[in-house]
Amino acid sequence: MNYGIIGRVLGMILIIESILMSPSLFISVYTRGEDQFPFIITMFIIFVIGGILYKIKVKDSSVNTREALAIVALGWIILSLAGALPLYLSKVTETYIDAFFEIVAGFTTTGVSVISNIEQAPLGILFWRSFTHWIGGMGILVFTVALLPILGIGGFQIFKAESPGPIAGKVVPRIRDTAMILYITYFIMTIAQILLLIFGGMGVYEAFIHTFATMGTGGFEIREGSVGFYNINYIHLVIAIFMTLSGVNFSIYYLIYKRKFKEAFLNEEFRLYLGIIIMATIVIGLNLYFTNYASIGYSIKDAFFQASATITTTGYSTADLKLWPSFSRGILTLLMLIGGSAGSTAGGIKVIRILIMFKLIKREVLKLFHPRAIIPIKINNRAISNEVVAGIYSFIALYFVIFIFGTLIISLEGIDLINAGSATIGAISNLGNLKFVGSLRSLSEYSQFSKLFLSFLMLLGRLELFTIIALIVPKNWRRVV
Amino acid sequence: MNYGIIGRVLGMILIIESILMSPSLFISVYTRGEDQFPFIITMFIIFVIGGILYKIKVKDSSVNTREALAIVALGWIILSLAGALPLYLSKVTETYIDAFFEIVAGFTTTGVSVISNIEQAPLGILFWRSFTHWIGGMGILVFTVALLPILGIGGFQIFKAESPGPIAGKVVPRIRDTAMILYITYFIMTIAQILLLIFGGMGVYEAFIHTFATMGTGGFEIREGSVGFYNINYIHLVIAIFMTLSGVNFSIYYLIYKRKFKEAFLNEEFRLYLGIIIMATIVIGLNLYFTNYASIGYSIKDAFFQASATITTTGYSTADLKLWPSFSRGILTLLMLIGGSAGSTAGGIKVIRILIMFKLIKREVLKLFHPRAIIPIKINNRAISNEVVAGIYSFIALYFVIFIFGTLIISLEGIDLINAGSATIGAISNLGNLKFVGSLRSLSEYSQFSKLFLSFLMLLGRLELFTIIALIVPKNWRRVV
Repeated sequence: MNYGIIGRVLGMILIIESILMSPSLFISVYTRGEDQFPFIITMFIIFVIGGILYKIKVKDSSVNTREALAIVALGWIILSLAGALPLYLSKVTETYIDAFFEIVAGFTTTGVSVISNIEQAPLGILFWRSFTHWIGGMGILVFTVALLPILGIGGFQIFKAESPGPIAGKVVPRIRDTAMILYITYFIMTIAQILLLIFGGMGVYEAFIHTFATMGTGGFEIREGSVGFYNINYIHLVIAIFMTLSGVNFSIYYLIYKRKFKEAFLNEEFRLYLGIIIMATIVIGLNLYFTNYASIGYSIKDAFFQASATITTTGYSTADLKLWPSFSRGILTLLMLIGGSAGSTAGGIKVIRILIMFKLIKREVLKLFHPRAIIPIKINNRAISNEVVAGIYSFIALYFVIFIFGTLIISLEGIDLINAGSATIGAISNLGNLKFVGSLRSLSEYSQFSKLFLSFLMLLGRLELFTIIALIVPKNWRRVV
Repeated sequence: MNYGIIGRVLGMILIIESILMSPSLFISVYTRGEDQFPFIITMFIIFVIGGILYKIKVKDSSVNTREALAIVALGWIILSLAGALPLYLSKVTETYIDAFFEIVAGFTTTGVSVISNIEQAPLGILFWRSFTHWIGGMGILVFTVALLPILGIGGFQIFKAESPGPIAGKVVPRIRDTAMILYITYFIMTIAQILLLIFGGMGVYEAFIHTFATMGTGGFEIREGSVGFYNINYIHLVIAIFMTLSGVNFSIYYLIYKRKFKEAFLNEEFRLYLGIIIMATIVIGLNLYFTNYASIGYSIKDAFFQASATITTTGYSTADLKLWPSFSRGILTLLMLIGGSAGSTAGGIKVIRILIMFKLIKREVLKLFHPRAIIPIKINNRAISNEVVAGIYSFIALYFVIFIFGTLIISLEGIDLINAGSATIGAISNLGNLKFVGSLRSLSEYSQFSKLFLSFLMLLGRLELFTIIALIVPKNWRRVV
């Protein structure tokens, strides 16, 4: 393991984070908030530590799989450890673990909060918290679109660029190229949403906050009642559309940019993703309408907003979901499990994995009738290797294994399994609060141990499970082969 | 499709069922119950219909995959349709669908009941109902140990006998050989349990009833409070041990019979199955003890009984599980999902599939460190083919897909998702009542549609999903390749 290069990259990450805190500092100074000094102290500390790490002398600057995994996992952790400081120092949270939990929920775009009295928190802190969604969303795009295909984690090989190329030492340059395109798309969409929200009458500050949470599919709220606070259909629709756009595989935007419209539109994951949202909107809309929830138009609008907020694991809401019929809430549970497209900022299992899973089930049925037939699994007319299939199935299996054991561990709090299970799946899927389950215990009431454990689960879910697992796997396993 | 041979076999099944009703008729005559005529009428009708079907002229008596699938699926359905008649005719249930549901729960060894005032029902009917557990258990052993390996459904190829042999036309003779050994084992164990229960002071009638439910891992009850009614530790232990034995892959008993002790004991599924029960007993026992449930000995005993009753999906209980701590109830949920061994009378996903799933996850992690290594998955030192792996994963995936969509359909009753989900997974896993979930709605309160749908799910679960799916798959799918 090349520890030098890992330290150097982590140092760079801290320096960048320190710089990224300046807009929040600006706001806290402008509003004369209690969070001015916390930001200044944090920025200074992490800049210095980052600088020291960055000065590490590195003889060999090659990054291969192990280093890449370590950088990603440790990078996310160190970002959160540092990002939590302003919250703790400004006493927005009682303990440092609470602050860490909150900021992990930010960077992983989970958006579950342990801060009580959110409307009284300093504006600089709230801005920073939401900004971590946006930074985390950016990070996850680079991670899933540029890095994972090369590492082949959980079946992500299917997105590998046409020329596979060698693995060792070549990770960084290729990531840089792809990352630049992603940055630009992400920026343009962010600016577009901010402008559209301001155009709809939302204040500039709130437009930024909501756009960060939408683009990162995070969902941190600054108002009681979530987006339902803004009782304007235009704003609901803008946010719903941008949530939907954030759950699209960003490779599609690249194809559109390259004017490969046909290839983009025929992409199977893209079509299925949109198809699921449309179907869910219709089914939930009708279910709401026929249970006398509201007029058909209003039912469809709320259904679209909620389907989009749930499949992208943003977690926003415009209505009190506890009052929705069971069937609609069941559909939302299903959407949460499916999650957005791979290579988007959304969480969950991901549409592509679900798609391949169904193709595999269909093949198994066909094989009953044609036992000797060899039936390849194809995505976008390209056959998928057995290796990728195994990766995808192992991912889904591990997802549920972590869900079950996570629930058991959280249940040791002495709470019922519904609460424990909801907190656990909310963390792994990076959805946050499962508002559709019913009246759940507030996350702030959980023990410090559970909060740390849930932070771990959020990171697991965000980094496609295997990245974190690889970090903690026993050494004797690695030697097995 | 050779419809002639299918009709002939179904006719034979009806004739045998008519004969199998005679002990129940004997009991109803002996107790002068209201169920005498219902039994006589039913036996006469199904004997005649069976005889007519059996007379069908068959030119070609070959049975290949399609016929085998159709016979198994239709056989189970026709057995239940006929077996429901005595319950309906003696007015133990209000509607025929209720009677059908009850008897499907019998034959599939699910053991969930819609009969209210069970202690007032005629003894002949109760005997028949429990006897269907025993018959169903027998049927499922033959199906999973003898038939499935040849058909290769859901990864059951791993149990295929050493010489694979051709598929078409050769199904019946090989099934007959294996079936005979299974019959004998099943009989001996049944007699042993009946004698041990009578020795412990249980009445002869009740000893039969409980043994049928234990051997078939069904769990129909004739007393309020389940096995907890018999407040004798000896009886609890006998039933717990025989439940555990019924969840063992019956091929293990064949190996023991052949004096291949080492091979039997080293069998990975067998060891994992016992290991899970032991671990669950210790963990639940300690959890109960430390939450002041009872003395350590009593806690361990109840833990063992419940672990065994749940992993084998029998569903018996000796205690009020609603009062157990969340953690223990979570462990029970997990045991239900795992289920017993393949080739046993138990339901659930099956231990072997879980074992292979974990080996696949481990391989995926290893591949992160050794991307080019080819790591075979081995069970009992034999490599498992990619085909089997795909079959197993598709099974597990389909299991959860059916669970989710089943829950959505049941939720249209207008009940909450916990009730809908519990009823659904109870049916697919052939467990029946999820007593550990809490106070659930009685199954008798569900609509006729939901009861039919749950009957369908019980059959799906019992026949390893793909058997039933194959029957209803659209024709244009079959032609795909």
